[in-house]
Amino acid sequence: MKVSALAEASGVSVASIKYYVREGLLPAGTQGTYDEGHVHRLRLIRALVEVGGLPIARIRATLAAIDDDAAPLHHAFGAVMHGIDSVPDVEPDVTEVHDWVRGRGWSIEDGAPAPYRLAELLATLRRFGFDVSLENLDSIADSAYAAAELEVGYARAQPTRTAAVESMMIGTVVFERVYAEIRRLALEAVSARQ
Amino acid sequence: MKVSALAEASGVSVASIKYYVREGLLPAGTQGTYDEGHVHRLRLIRALVEVGGLPIARIRATLAAIDDDAAPLHHAFGAVMHGIDSVPDVEPDVTEVHDWVRGRGWSIEDGAPAPYRLAELLATLRRFGFDVSLENLDSIADSAYAAAELEVGYARAQPTRTAAVESMMIGTVVFERVYAEIRRLALEAVSARQ
Repeated sequence: MKVSALAEASGVSVASIKYYVREGLLPAGTQGTYDEGHVHRLRLIRALVEVGGLPIARIRATLAAIDDDAAPLHHAFGAVMHGIDSVPDVEPDVTEVHDWVRGRGWSIEDGAPAPYRLAELLATLRRFGFDVSLENLDSIADSAYAAAELEVGYARAQPTRTAAVESMMIGTVVFERVYAEIRRLALEAVSARQ
Repeated sequence: MKVSALAEASGVSVASIKYYVREGLLPAGTQGTYDEGHVHRLRLIRALVEVGGLPIARIRATLAAIDDDAAPLHHAFGAVMHGIDSVPDVEPDVTEVHDWVRGRGWSIEDGAPAPYRLAELLATLRRFGFDVSLENLDSIADSAYAAAELEVGYARAQPTRTAAVESMMIGTVVFERVYAEIRRLALEAVSARQ
């Protein structure tokens, strides 16, 4: 299909399509012709932009994980996790988080952004007087782990490697928002009752 | 203190302070003099910007909830919940979400953004072939409700109304990210093990 038909099929404007091609997020069409693979990729990009609010550079990093067929699936999943986030500019002390993670028996790669982000969030909560410790979050971590087992199992059961990594990417970004919205509903419901 | 001392005490640049005053987020200092209340408010604004990634207009809406002393506390909490989010431009069908929320006995105000956001996320997941129903999310909702009871109770126990609404605001935005980061750690841990 031509770029105008691709725009219609995907609901993404021609200008945005050209921008994504220029930025290396979407493969250029052969002689200006696009196929269903492009429609699919555009839908993925839009979900990462609209739901995840991810900047273009981070989407490029996560998509690179899909496109590198040589990398083992676990590395691709790791690239997704790390690609959608980054280590903060001012690195907080992560010893506490690393100890907690190790204590749970969780294997997390060095340089993964999540421990830094978590350490930073704990520091923020404490600055506002919240008396919070990681041990308070153990039951949250238990349910997160149980949910993660289902999600990773679902991704691994996908018929192709690309589908597996995509499923991981969408699952991570979209389910994260699903949980956040349910939490907001619960907060309002509790506040209405109390 | 002068604006330069306020910048030093809060870690926020003079230019940003002036911008926040202009945008109505920070009360102007009396004859250019600022106090501890300003330092505190700046810290709150920075947390909402940096952790929550909230645009200025939404921060203004949530801060208005703190500053309106006449509103009952539940309304202020509702304004916080609603102020940090907005109903999507293209409104999805929310019947399914409203029915589920009602079935749980949760009282949610008409026009609250969360049901619309949740409906939109479900539609996105289904477009990507995820076979997801709200009933699958019942146990998530149960734990979210239990956590919300603790959080709202903590906010209500604050000595002043302002502290209560602030605590609700910080709790909503920051704990949301805490849970998201723990989820990412869990996903990586599971992926490493499988």
